[in-house]
Amino acid sequence: MSRRGILTVVSGFSGAGKGTVMKELVKKPDYKLSISATTRLPREGEIDGREYFFLTREKFESMIETGQFIEHAEYVGNYYGTPKQYVEEQLEAGYNVILEIEIQGALHVKEVFPDALLLFIVPPSAKTLKERLINRGTEDEAAVQKRMNRAVEESQFMEKYDYLVVNDKLNECVEAVHHIILSQRDKVKYNTGFICEMQRQLKAVQEGDL
Amino acid sequence: MSRRGILTVVSGFSGAGKGTVMKELVKKPDYKLSISATTRLPREGEIDGREYFFLTREKFESMIETGQFIEHAEYVGNYYGTPKQYVEEQLEAGYNVILEIEIQGALHVKEVFPDALLLFIVPPSAKTLKERLINRGTEDEAAVQKRMNRAVEESQFMEKYDYLVVNDKLNECVEAVHHIILSQRDKVKYNTGFICEMQRQLKAVQEGDL
Repeated sequence: MSRRGILTVVSGFSGAGKGTVMKELVKKPDYKLSISATTRLPREGEIDGREYFFLTREKFESMIETGQFIEHAEYVGNYYGTPKQYVEEQLEAGYNVILEIEIQGALHVKEVFPDALLLFIVPPSAKTLKERLINRGTEDEAAVQKRMNRAVEESQFMEKYDYLVVNDKLNECVEAVHHIILSQRDKVKYNTGFICEMQRQLKAVQEGDL
Repeated sequence: MSRRGILTVVSGFSGAGKGTVMKELVKKPDYKLSISATTRLPREGEIDGREYFFLTREKFESMIETGQFIEHAEYVGNYYGTPKQYVEEQLEAGYNVILEIEIQGALHVKEVFPDALLLFIVPPSAKTLKERLINRGTEDEAAVQKRMNRAVEESQFMEKYDYLVVNDKLNECVEAVHHIILSQRDKVKYNTGFICEMQRQLKAVQEGDL
């Protein structure tokens, strides 16, 4: 792989199915899920460098200070963040890197990486979203209502994203996301090197040097 | 089909194979090639409304005056142009409309339709381009040189396009173009109606009205 990969940030309402979409996506070649760092302790079965990079609070804070996170936040006393170095290395190696983060983090990534592709995964309708949340069967009515409230808030930011993909049929949604990402590589702005080389070659052929 | 189609303008060096790419592309559903209008006389086998809309000079000029062309030009005493109405009707009906025009015309289309997608089809290398032109066997060395000179000029405008697609293997190129066009439909800017409706629905569900 010679071309730099595409950095994609995926957000969406809880219940939109973005986790499932991404699980399918990374089965394709050339994709890597970004691995977050956290200060919380590993749960049973979690492996450092697979689920998370597990860091001490001291280490995490020194990485914040030296600007080594693309974005980070603190939840319930623990830090969570996206280490810049891992993402950079994978992109450089030609992998398309996917970050799953919520809206404020996503918009922040766009500031740090203006070329990042922001995707928002939506259910076909609000009613479907509520049904999906209820059918999970893992949450009571109050928790479902809380997620719906959050979706109302989050829906105000949908227009800040680059692409909106409806997750109606899983397979179609995965393919749509895949092709949006692939298409980025053909954008003129990612091919200025190729353009330059083509102009040089054409001149050489014109002058009989090739 | 409920969504408006995508208008795509395809350009490329003579010999890049864009004609073949487009012939394959319009075999897919939901695509329409734009039909140009001309004042030249129909050749044997050409049918009005299929190869061209054949117009009198008087009619053509009155259409220019009333702004009914997206772009038009005069070659060797005859007018050629892209009628706006036909393109509008097909887009409105949900078809993706493809225009194959040269660079100056393409950049003009972008002025009239800022949402138009500008694609540039390129050969993998300048050498391949020359080989393809020679292998056509229909042109002498001087004509090939003339086309190469033109490619050198045209290559200065590649950066004005939105996407650059390399035509190495025909099938791959056709699929790449197809997916670039499909991806456009998921852009947030084409889905403001959906976003608005989703925000409305979420509020209704939140308030228990749905």
